[in-house]
Amino acid sequence: MARALENLVMVLSRLPGIGRRSAERIAYRLLRDGSNAIHELTSALQNANERLDRCTLCGNVTERDANPCPICQKPGRNDGLLCVVEEPGDISLMERSGGYNGRYFCLLGRLSPINDDTIPPPRLAQLLNRIRDHKVQEVLLAMNSDMEGDATASYLHEQLENLPVKITRLAFGLPAGSALTYSDPVTLARAIQGRQELP
Amino acid sequence: MARALENLVMVLSRLPGIGRRSAERIAYRLLRDGSNAIHELTSALQNANERLDRCTLCGNVTERDANPCPICQKPGRNDGLLCVVEEPGDISLMERSGGYNGRYFCLLGRLSPINDDTIPPPRLAQLLNRIRDHKVQEVLLAMNSDMEGDATASYLHEQLENLPVKITRLAFGLPAGSALTYSDPVTLARAIQGRQELP
Repeated sequence: MARALENLVMVLSRLPGIGRRSAERIAYRLLRDGSNAIHELTSALQNANERLDRCTLCGNVTERDANPCPICQKPGRNDGLLCVVEEPGDISLMERSGGYNGRYFCLLGRLSPINDDTIPPPRLAQLLNRIRDHKVQEVLLAMNSDMEGDATASYLHEQLENLPVKITRLAFGLPAGSALTYSDPVTLARAIQGRQELP
Repeated sequence: MARALENLVMVLSRLPGIGRRSAERIAYRLLRDGSNAIHELTSALQNANERLDRCTLCGNVTERDANPCPICQKPGRNDGLLCVVEEPGDISLMERSGGYNGRYFCLLGRLSPINDDTIPPPRLAQLLNRIRDHKVQEVLLAMNSDMEGDATASYLHEQLENLPVKITRLAFGLPAGSALTYSDPVTLARAIQGRQELP
């Protein structure tokens, strides 16, 4: 394989969710489509690199000239409710759900000893300050429902326990539109444990 | 979502095999990893764009300063055997199999009326010339075993029929390491039809 092609495939296959085969397919497609396709991608990358920054308040991705980000700046949201997520991408998922109207704080990490991931200590200090300074009444932990998510949520729970703040976590249960037949035992056990009284 | 991020996600999601969710995941990862990760990808893309070209003989991807490509130039390969593939990527799959020692010709297209794909007419003329000029004795059609592959192979078969050349196609049958239980009826029917006498 030509060196420049091999190199492109190698770099592409480092992206999340892209294996060697997919990387080859993408590289060949880009080369087939030619300079325009490649230019479009490189300029989108450079543009993103130049224009985007972290929101100084929540850590979300935002345009350099809109910092704090639009969600942090938007009036009418509930300042007393703070949702803590692991990654900036989680914020857009929460927003799309249409079920949340508070503010956000992005940890920019998770507890995962296996992958050597951790929550950056200054980030934890920033979270504590944010809760104190903005008079937060409820912290909603929106961690994933996996081992790392559980560990991260437990750790945060410990750290926040002594603050005068209510700590909640996203509910576990049946995903929407699913049948009992296809639910795994752990999901079902959690749905039973978290059962809700009908009004 | 920030504009430069939205744009990057849109461009990424045009790549083959990358949906909206994967594109978002890749974009956030690149932004998390920062300028170096983005620079590495943009320079791999630019480098590929500048240095790579089509092999003038077979149509494979090759370095600009190694044209014809190393496979076309390599001595000791069987010039009388020409394998016709749809895409450059198919050549590296054939090479990796270790089962082929002839030359290649890449169609740079396939017959697929549904997707509006076709074999570029000049490419067909080049194939005919190649067969005549290089005294090819056997043309191995290495099309996919799907509807488009079948259509492409039939079409080429018609076009080459009157040339003094043997035309073959890759065998259909059971994939290596597979069990009869899991083979679909069409594969099994083709394996029966193509059954081989044991020596």
